[in-house]
Amino acid sequence: METKPTRLKSILNEVSDLNGAQEVLGWDQQTYMPAGGAEARGEELSTLARITHDRFTADEIGVLLQDLLPYAESLDPESDDARLIHVTHREYGKQTKVSSDWVAEFTQITSMSQEALVTARTESNFKLFQPHLERIVELRRQYADFFKPYAHVYDALLDDYEPGLKTADVQTIFDRLRTEQVALIKAIAASKPVDDSFLKVTLDEQKQWDFGVEVITRFGYDWMRGRQDKAPHPFTTSFGSDDVRITTRFLPNSGSSALFSTMHECGHALYEQGISSRLRRTLLMSGASMALHESQSRLWENLVGRSKEFWSHFYPRFQTLFPETMGKVSLDNFYKGINKVEPSLIRVESDEATYNLHVMLRMEIEIALMEGKLQVKDLPEVWNEKMREYLGITPPNDAQGVLQDIHWSGGSIGYFPTYALGNLVSVQLWEKIQEELPSLHSQIRNGDFTSLLAWLRENLHQHGAKFDPQDMVVKITGSKISPEPYLRYLKTKYSEIYNL
Amino acid sequence: METKPTRLKSILNEVSDLNGAQEVLGWDQQTYMPAGGAEARGEELSTLARITHDRFTADEIGVLLQDLLPYAESLDPESDDARLIHVTHREYGKQTKVSSDWVAEFTQITSMSQEALVTARTESNFKLFQPHLERIVELRRQYADFFKPYAHVYDALLDDYEPGLKTADVQTIFDRLRTEQVALIKAIAASKPVDDSFLKVTLDEQKQWDFGVEVITRFGYDWMRGRQDKAPHPFTTSFGSDDVRITTRFLPNSGSSALFSTMHECGHALYEQGISSRLRRTLLMSGASMALHESQSRLWENLVGRSKEFWSHFYPRFQTLFPETMGKVSLDNFYKGINKVEPSLIRVESDEATYNLHVMLRMEIEIALMEGKLQVKDLPEVWNEKMREYLGITPPNDAQGVLQDIHWSGGSIGYFPTYALGNLVSVQLWEKIQEELPSLHSQIRNGDFTSLLAWLRENLHQHGAKFDPQDMVVKITGSKISPEPYLRYLKTKYSEIYNL
Repeated sequence: METKPTRLKSILNEVSDLNGAQEVLGWDQQTYMPAGGAEARGEELSTLARITHDRFTADEIGVLLQDLLPYAESLDPESDDARLIHVTHREYGKQTKVSSDWVAEFTQITSMSQEALVTARTESNFKLFQPHLERIVELRRQYADFFKPYAHVYDALLDDYEPGLKTADVQTIFDRLRTEQVALIKAIAASKPVDDSFLKVTLDEQKQWDFGVEVITRFGYDWMRGRQDKAPHPFTTSFGSDDVRITTRFLPNSGSSALFSTMHECGHALYEQGISSRLRRTLLMSGASMALHESQSRLWENLVGRSKEFWSHFYPRFQTLFPETMGKVSLDNFYKGINKVEPSLIRVESDEATYNLHVMLRMEIEIALMEGKLQVKDLPEVWNEKMREYLGITPPNDAQGVLQDIHWSGGSIGYFPTYALGNLVSVQLWEKIQEELPSLHSQIRNGDFTSLLAWLRENLHQHGAKFDPQDMVVKITGSKISPEPYLRYLKTKYSEIYNL
Repeated sequence: METKPTRLKSILNEVSDLNGAQEVLGWDQQTYMPAGGAEARGEELSTLARITHDRFTADEIGVLLQDLLPYAESLDPESDDARLIHVTHREYGKQTKVSSDWVAEFTQITSMSQEALVTARTESNFKLFQPHLERIVELRRQYADFFKPYAHVYDALLDDYEPGLKTADVQTIFDRLRTEQVALIKAIAASKPVDDSFLKVTLDEQKQWDFGVEVITRFGYDWMRGRQDKAPHPFTTSFGSDDVRITTRFLPNSGSSALFSTMHECGHALYEQGISSRLRRTLLMSGASMALHESQSRLWENLVGRSKEFWSHFYPRFQTLFPETMGKVSLDNFYKGINKVEPSLIRVESDEATYNLHVMLRMEIEIALMEGKLQVKDLPEVWNEKMREYLGITPPNDAQGVLQDIHWSGGSIGYFPTYALGNLVSVQLWEKIQEELPSLHSQIRNGDFTSLLAWLRENLHQHGAKFDPQDMVVKITGSKISPEPYLRYLKTKYSEIYNL
């Protein structure tokens, strides 16, 4: 006879396997699936999502959890079992509010929408995507309604990506960021421009690939438990911590885009590869939240990858690979080039000073859509208006504007804020790491990331989703998610680069 | 309120989606999965297999089928609905005999065994694979026991791959084949050898790939609904008829191996891509049996791909791609080279005259294992003895002997006979096609496969698994599976090549 904790884990193992299978199907969909496979893939994913949902929300789990909560209270509150019961209870409470018909329909619709977005973008025609997005917004409103009463219609959506955080919290943080970042961008615009013309080149793909592989191998990415492929939109996906895959893409006229994308996705992957195997096949086997996940990708991409220390080690090698383009560019000018601040159209290609503004624009649009104050059909116009207001530029077409991200086509509304929050957390962690690892900068100058990765594993990665993410941030950094460290970082970095 | 036929289909749709998901996971496992992912993949596949089995064997389907059988009798017996009900009833009868614990364990064990086989083969050490195979044989015995009483312990296994055929039927066919094929090989061995030294070369991989793609595109493979990747063991897999994928491999010192493998897998894929979309998301959406499937792969690989007509069209192009190797080889000598008869170690690389002997050897071993007359530990020795007896050669190591196939590691026992039966059916079909398409040979000489594919679609492909495979063979060719046409074909072909 199975004990109750064993029985709970055995069901959670099944749910975890089902989720892993969906991730495999999703990975394939975005990397290798032929176009004709889209419809069947939507059906497969929809069926799997429904079965997973039914399995996880079964009455049996409710009864088990009720029986196990007192047991959890008797344990060390930080033990794996106590946390597993609490996190499962929280997630069960949320998911049982959602009907499995909704889950199946949502999965089917969003699977097909991703194909529609690709077509709409190819033809730069928002109208082709509009009916899909309208249905998704409707479904997301129904979703929010499952969680009534709420302080804000956006709260339930945000909570899926950033448990414990409220819309109002984010708005307070963003208000502070917006004022300061807009002022900083203005100051930079008024100063002597940085030259990055040497980056606006099309470099040999294989050499870019190889250099990226060299770098992330040094970071500590474990190729026995992962791989890299090409995908139109780079992403990381994980089927347990022993198969964590990344993707990258190569853009013409952008010599560094693939590299930074690879470092970014590697940051996500290092988090997943670092989760303790004690948590495998449970819902604790994942990052604690999207902001914490993004803190890892941005830490490796920006705090490491755009630092002078990193390039003082890797630049000679980079120059050897691309002697014609980089041979005559000094390390100092290269460093300034990869950190050039310039309002631009595409979020994922934007610099650290403007990035958060791209995010705010999206969050404001999402909130307006959810509140019913904005119609999907008006989205391109509103998008372009906000781009002018925040960044002073107008997208020449929808492909480079409202159609650039895949999130909405996948049904993700409430996800974008975590990108900016991740930036904030990355610097909160970075300040702490610098305190605790005084030789961090000299290690990076030597191309040695061992202590850095060990610190992240010890303090963050190993715990997976075991602890509440907002508590984790406080526990590790001594403060809640806060804009001040990030603003300090931006000001210091750009004062030096731009002589502000 | 759903009608009963609708309800049945809706459950079968789910089962089909679950099977499709497993195929995707299997494809990934054999193409791109990193080594570290093996354990989690085994768990995911095991969970999916158990859920699929539970879903399909649920009491609800039994009740629905009982209610629907009289309805099926009222329909045109060849209608989709009548056949769906009958085939589902047959399959339900079989699967309900098997416990879902058995299914889960079998899936888990076989998923892990595939990794063990890879290691065992790399080290050419059968002992590393032996305990896995012992467990698989045990599990397969248990499986056969679910179907007691049986005429032969091997019947239930064979029936999974070749519904309706009995072990005794196959033995009768094979007895006839063995005598005739051994005599033919002896006659060939006594005649003037054919030169194929120009094929024992390592050709540029990309050019081989491109040529293979050219050929199968001409055959009619639809790339919008498929793709080709590399895999250590070429296979075809299908996630519905709109995503049918093939794989190939490149061997050193073998200039034509990849090409014939690509044509072979394309033959399987054309069958799957040709199934009527009316049958999608049901268990009729697959080939009717393994022998029928293999009849298609062998038809395109051998009857088309090793014919003089085919090469009279494609050889000039092939020579252009490989001028140094093939430039001075005449079409006639090339044709003889690719049809050289020579006892060899590896089944998939063997010629049409010896191939079936490789199959018989395996079937005899499988039967002895199942009957308990042979222990797994004695397999390498028995393998090598039989190789000497049938083909007069001794494998230099287990990697090129008993460890060469993946079937046993995947739990497939009873599959091998269908390879030889597929050869027989391919020629039975070929004789019929030649009657009905008098200009077939001249079309092939023009590189035109349109009528051939249309004939196969019309007579075989579109029906999927709708009809009983043994009935299908009779219906299309006028005879049951029979060795005579194949023997006629071999004698005619090799009498000409070897002047017998």
